Amino acid sequence: MNYKMIIEYDGTRYEGWQKQKHSDETLQGKIEKAFEKVTGENVQIIGAGRTDSGVHAKGQVANVHLPYDLNAENLKNELNEILPDDIYIKQCIEVEEKFHSRFHAKSKIYEYNLRIGSNKDVFQKRFIWQFAKPLCIEKMKRAAEILQGTHDFTAFCNNKHFKKSAVRTVYSIEISTSNDILHLRFCGDGFLQGMIRIMVGTLVEVGENKRDADSLYDVLKSKQRSNAGFTAPPQGLTLISVQY
Amino acid sequence: MNYKMIIEYDGTRYEGWQKQKHSDETLQGKIEKAFEKVTGENVQIIGAGRTDSGVHAKGQVANVHLPYDLNAENLKNELNEILPDDIYIKQCIEVEEKFHSRFHAKSKIYEYNLRIGSNKDVFQKRFIWQFAKPLCIEKMKRAAEILQGTHDFTAFCNNKHFKKSAVRTVYSIEISTSNDILHLRFCGDGFLQGMIRIMVGTLVEVGENKRDADSLYDVLKSKQRSNAGFTAPPQGLTLISVQY
Repeated sequence: MNYKMIIEYDGTRYEGWQKQKHSDETLQGKIEKAFEKVTGENVQIIGAGRTDSGVHAKGQVANVHLPYDLNAENLKNELNEILPDDIYIKQCIEVEEKFHSRFHAKSKIYEYNLRIGSNKDVFQKRFIWQFAKPLCIEKMKRAAEILQGTHDFTAFCNNKHFKKSAVRTVYSIEISTSNDILHLRFCGDGFLQGMIRIMVGTLVEVGENKRDADSLYDVLKSKQRSNAGFTAPPQGLTLISVQY
Repeated sequence: MNYKMIIEYDGTRYEGWQKQKHSDETLQGKIEKAFEKVTGENVQIIGAGRTDSGVHAKGQVANVHLPYDLNAENLKNELNEILPDDIYIKQCIEVEEKFHSRFHAKSKIYEYNLRIGSNKDVFQKRFIWQFAKPLCIEKMKRAAEILQGTHDFTAFCNNKHFKKSAVRTVYSIEISTSNDILHLRFCGDGFLQGMIRIMVGTLVEVGENKRDADSLYDVLKSKQRSNAGFTAPPQGLTLISVQY
């Protein structure tokens, strides 16, 4: 049986989604451990997005194969009883055997939130980057248009040893504000390691007038990580949803 | 000079507002330490509400006397630079010398939030009590009406050694829901130690049909802590504002 889950987490205290040899503090690891307690099975959870350390999710999707048929709703409830209270399985349904949460994902939506005003909100600090300086949003929108579309995003990848194709399609980058929060919403067919946070850092440099919007043509063409901007901090980033 | 501040804090990791001999982890202590760094003065901060361990504030008011005249806006900014990022001074203004944040407070508003649905929201868990069971809200509203008004609230006080008058006036208790969150908003001239959380615990027992709404007349009259309900957990409670 194959179960598909939609998972929400506050990633603050975790070392990212992907299980690591030398750390118990990963989201995949925590959820696999909960499965072991509930089912007795040593399963492998396949996550759609391998979120980095400190990154959150409102709609991570994962699937898991189990050798027997369980009521999906009961399974969900039992897992939620055991999981730490910063991880929550919102939905669990049975899907066809061949469904793969990562390979079959058509698009993903991520949102990055940063505060451009100097006010703070102590209740939001875990989920927003406190940038606290004004930005020229019109310039950022112009630069975001350049990043949209199908490109080789090697310059926007933090994994130096990445060997496969770095060509990705960014369907849209929507930039909006509410009060003094700037929201950057990215929809794409897939994102390289660190890609969204480097895009955010680069767009912020444009908004600060530290680089021209048009310079992004050359950054993309150069395929050099050093030509793009800095990596924005993780707490502002949330995986919103995965489409199939 | 006398400065009045409006302060916001996430109280999760603090042992309450009031400074303690054997703990550095109090809000008053943290703010006094920040003052010492900025002004060199060993000051005493007077808070309007002595919030318990784990209780939050969106509008705590405090005042502090300094022996010299400082620009209140600069003072605020320098303090915010130093304060941990779960404490934020939203406003700082100079007020007349005789202003006392606690003695002059005419009323305070507190809000308690609890989730009555079984869903979780990992992003709100620090600020909402995950009660996760249905409640009869009509009965709770009936019971809340009984608590409104001027009464001796000894039965709703966690401080056994409290010697002064326990007569307080609760101007209003508003109960409302949004999605699966129950909001209880209390406005009163002052609240005894633990009083709001005991009122919440008692109202929850009414909502669970564990006690009658009308039983609250006797609870008030008895002046016995043991006749009231349990103390609801602190994370659901926030001091919203103080009126003068």
